[in-house]
Amino acid sequence: MSEDILEKTKATGALYFSGIDGEKPFELWRDFDKDLGRELSLFITGRLYAREKIPHPTRQLVTVAVLTVLSRPEELKLHIQAALNVGCTSKDIAEVIFQTFTYGGIPTVNTALKVLREVLMEKGQWPVQEE
Amino acid sequence: MSEDILEKTKATGALYFSGIDGEKPFELWRDFDKDLGRELSLFITGRLYAREKIPHPTRQLVTVAVLTVLSRPEELKLHIQAALNVGCTSKDIAEVIFQTFTYGGIPTVNTALKVLREVLMEKGQWPVQEE
Amino acid sequence: MSEDILEKTKATGALYFSGIDGEKPFELWRDFDKDLGRELSLFITGRLYAREKIPHPTRQLVTVAVLTVLSRPEELKLHIQAALNVGCTSKDIAEVIFQTFTYGGIPTVNTALKVLREVLMEKGQWPVQEE
Amino acid sequence: MSEDILEKTKATGALYFSGIDGEKPFELWRDFDKDLGRELSLFITGRLYAREKIPHPTRQLVTVAVLTVLSRPEELKLHIQAALNVGCTSKDIAEVIFQTFTYGGIPTVNTALKVLREVLMEKGQWPVQEE
Amino acid sequence: MSEDILEKTKATGALYFSGIDGEKPFELWRDFDKDLGRELSLFITGRLYAREKIPHPTRQLVTVAVLTVLSRPEELKLHIQAALNVGCTSKDIAEVIFQTFTYGGIPTVNTALKVLREVLMEKGQWPVQEE
Amino acid sequence: MSEDILEKTKATGALYFSGIDGEKPFELWRDFDKDLGRELSLFITGRLYAREKIPHPTRQLVTVAVLTVLSRPEELKLHIQAALNVGCTSKDIAEVIFQTFTYGGIPTVNTALKVLREVLMEKGQWPVQEE
Repeated sequence: MSEDILEKTKATGALYFSGIDGEKPFELWRDFDKDLGRELSLFITGRLYAREKIPHPTRQLVTVAVLTVLSRPEELKLHIQAALNVGCTSKDIAEVIFQTFTYGGIPTVNTALKVLREVLMEKGQWPVQEE
Repeated sequence: MSEDILEKTKATGALYFSGIDGEKPFELWRDFDKDLGRELSLFITGRLYAREKIPHPTRQLVTVAVLTVLSRPEELKLHIQAALNVGCTSKDIAEVIFQTFTYGGIPTVNTALKVLREVLMEKGQWPVQEE
Repeated sequence: MSEDILEKTKATGALYFSGIDGEKPFELWRDFDKDLGRELSLFITGRLYAREKIPHPTRQLVTVAVLTVLSRPEELKLHIQAALNVGCTSKDIAEVIFQTFTYGGIPTVNTALKVLREVLMEKGQWPVQEE
Repeated sequence: MSEDILEKTKATGALYFSGIDGEKPFELWRDFDKDLGRELSLFITGRLYAREKIPHPTRQLVTVAVLTVLSRPEELKLHIQAALNVGCTSKDIAEVIFQTFTYGGIPTVNTALKVLREVLMEKGQWPVQEE
Repeated sequence: MSEDILEKTKATGALYFSGIDGEKPFELWRDFDKDLGRELSLFITGRLYAREKIPHPTRQLVTVAVLTVLSRPEELKLHIQAALNVGCTSKDIAEVIFQTFTYGGIPTVNTALKVLREVLMEKGQWPVQEE
Repeated sequence: MSEDILEKTKATGALYFSGIDGEKPFELWRDFDKDLGRELSLFITGRLYAREKIPHPTRQLVTVAVLTVLSRPEELKLHIQAALNVGCTSKDIAEVIFQTFTYGGIPTVNTALKVLREVLMEKGQWPVQEE
């Protein structure tokens, strides 16, 4: 079972975070406490993210929305990239950010849209094409 | 166009909020300022919620997640009921609440799960059946 | 000077909090630590609230707005009563609560409006008359 | 009526935001969704800000206070500039920021004072003259 | 190792939560998802709380402070009881709550002091004796 | 007594903030309002921090935890340096930051660990040695 969770952690990590540059949270944790860093990764990625109870794109849109209203732009950048990795479109992501306005206010919407624009620029997908 | 937005507000309001007891936000707003209450309803329900850019169940799971991490249990109760109205299952809603743990911490998860349980109890759908 | 600050604390406290029922924060602090409770009162009421740099109604509308977006309904109830004491009207207070929507979202507006309604009901000033 | 709201949006926008450099929120929204950006502008500026229920300087001091405690420094910079545009003095603004200490704590006061100082420096109005 | 973590979870749970009435978070989680509830317990109690890197009373004062500023009174009540279980005095707890004032503001201090008073009343330890 | 509080402010300020570079909050306050800046310093440092009710390292670990979950990285940097000044180790500080995960979520843990790493790098104490 311990092997199983390690496998799930790797597979889920690959699905969400492949090809994303920059320091990953688990690298930061590990630099302070190797064992704890490992446990956090196995738990968050292998236990929580690996669950197949809702589709991965839905799970990740939820994460984007939550990071928007909590105003965590650095974490949000990582998870917008992950959202694109699991199959969300940039339009889905923008819509979810706008949807948070009613509940969390406009300043965090603005910050999140700028993060999304930054990601899209880095991928050469900006400006977004209106249909 | 003004008629159009009124129609959309009514249809979207019916889709999300039919059969839900208790004072609705627009009734509260109207008691303080009739015109402003009307404008807020037309804008939030008719302009934002009526958009068909993402499926309604996805939109509403996002709302549930955001209200969870912001710790707004009263508003959350209304929107858990609305989530069930637009086709989310209680398992989807629970999963989305659990998903917020990593980003917003466990106390708001606990509060949200209690609200979900309260709604399910009122509907005679508690306890949830494990498959 | 120590006498001076005591006078200011009493006068400012009387201006803001006369005739308001219920436990006051300084009574709560004092029950845990008499000296610290006294220092907190002298500082918050005598040093900060006593400042005549902006009109008291403006100062108190700011307090109402801040307590609205931070979602502190118990403290808000005390300060809505204080706002009425220093000359704000119920319409000013409602307008300031609505103004926070754009920045802090609608759920905290709803909670604050309910607190305002509760205060107005207790004072026999509900429903508000539209002009 | 649709013309009326467009006029109000323009007039209110001019009153608050004239002469302020940098990207405006409505430009950001529009880049993602032209129609929604327009609706948000008409609603926030034309419906909410255009209301003449409290004086514009009071409305804007409320906005400054709320953005202070929510810790939204980028949005705060825009609205400190707008506060100066509608007739608030830098001393009013500083006083309102200090007033939030009791309710929101000192770190957000410090951040907001730095934003205010930055705006005043850009306008050549720093240091503030003590009377 | 799996046995080891189960033992640690039980021992740490007993140390912190013995004799505390009311529904525990893991009971709530389990009612929604048995496996996930178990994993959350093993991780939070067995992996994080069981760590002997700082003394348990220090760890728990940190938890009390964090729950104070985040304004989570229900979770706070559980953890004030746990703080008393691991050897914190009521005076330590009150001091830590007061210490948060500068950073998180007074309303959350007031809420937390009321929770502390409620716990002390239930234990017949109120009023606190001044030395 | 006024002399006494001035002495306590100086002694406590020296204990916590000696040798820390950069603008201090009281310098910022003073630039806006000399009297208020002085009162805030006397109160926060002389009245609150000078209290000998809990050990200074415990008090400061509480401050670090609170600034972590509130996401105030600039203030946190100052107080991590102060924590090291009053005798906390970098391992204590990291442990306290990790402890906040369960209650405030992982993004603020990540931000705080980066601030801690930055402080340790500036002091030539990075990487931390595992025992």
